[in-house]
Amino acid sequence: MKRIVIITILLLFTVTSFAKKDKSAQGADVLRQLEAEFAADVAQQGHDAFITHFAEDGVEIVDGGGINTKDDMRKQPAWPEGTSLTWTPVKAEMAASGDLGYTYGNYVYTAKNKEGKLITTYGKYTSIWKKQKDGQWKVVVDMGNSSPEPKSGK
Amino acid sequence: MKRIVIITILLLFTVTSFAKKDKSAQGADVLRQLEAEFAADVAQQGHDAFITHFAEDGVEIVDGGGINTKDDMRKQPAWPEGTSLTWTPVKAEMAASGDLGYTYGNYVYTAKNKEGKLITTYGKYTSIWKKQKDGQWKVVVDMGNSSPEPKSGK
Repeated sequence: MKRIVIITILLLFTVTSFAKKDKSAQGADVLRQLEAEFAADVAQQGHDAFITHFAEDGVEIVDGGGINTKDDMRKQPAWPEGTSLTWTPVKAEMAASGDLGYTYGNYVYTAKNKEGKLITTYGKYTSIWKKQKDGQWKVVVDMGNSSPEPKSGK
Repeated sequence: MKRIVIITILLLFTVTSFAKKDKSAQGADVLRQLEAEFAADVAQQGHDAFITHFAEDGVEIVDGGGINTKDDMRKQPAWPEGTSLTWTPVKAEMAASGDLGYTYGNYVYTAKNKEGKLITTYGKYTSIWKKQKDGQWKVVVDMGNSSPEPKSGK
């Protein structure tokens, strides 16, 4: 009898810890999927996609600039032709409640310089996502900073 | 009778929404307190305080550098005399589960330049905090980028 109880407890423990790991992996998958959709929209709509994916109280913490609210973003002009931004998450993590999570990783940004030549710069980003009251996921914080130019990138 | 039922429902609704707001405010307070303790430790111990306050899987996303693991941080030398870093949260927000939260805000960094003159630079930061299995709160992501020099700062 004692043995059955011990086995049952061990089984329950194993199942619970698998369920926890599974939930954590699922949460990271949700965040990676959100980033992929956001990136796909940015590829099509440029900076306008930021308006779509940001929460009403979301902010863009601009490298070399200030803390831009969504209203600040709305006032920005569309990206000039040739501008592109892509990013690749390195890590994604979700809160146990499944309503707040983050990813960080690397970005590649290409835009024309003053002479009209396309210049590519490299950097890192952190995005924090929050599930809104209506169930939609939106970005509450987006921040970037620069990386050294990749040595093998030329 | 109908009136009593309605009043009871309204009262329950009010109490519940107050409790929710209260929990959310408490979560933000926890995060602001963590930042204050972290900042106090940095004031005393310099960069060593980063080791104490970072999770084992925490990263420092360095402006102009890479994504530093805690092991990378351990290899860094102590800050030279005169170096100081202070920061002020602008916003703090906690997940409903109370295990993951973030703050972002502004920092002021002072360090000697090559000529030995103390130079102050201004920037913004985002910190993401995660409650560890042992109940301790640690930083999982810390990122900074530069701000324009304040116009009235001189």
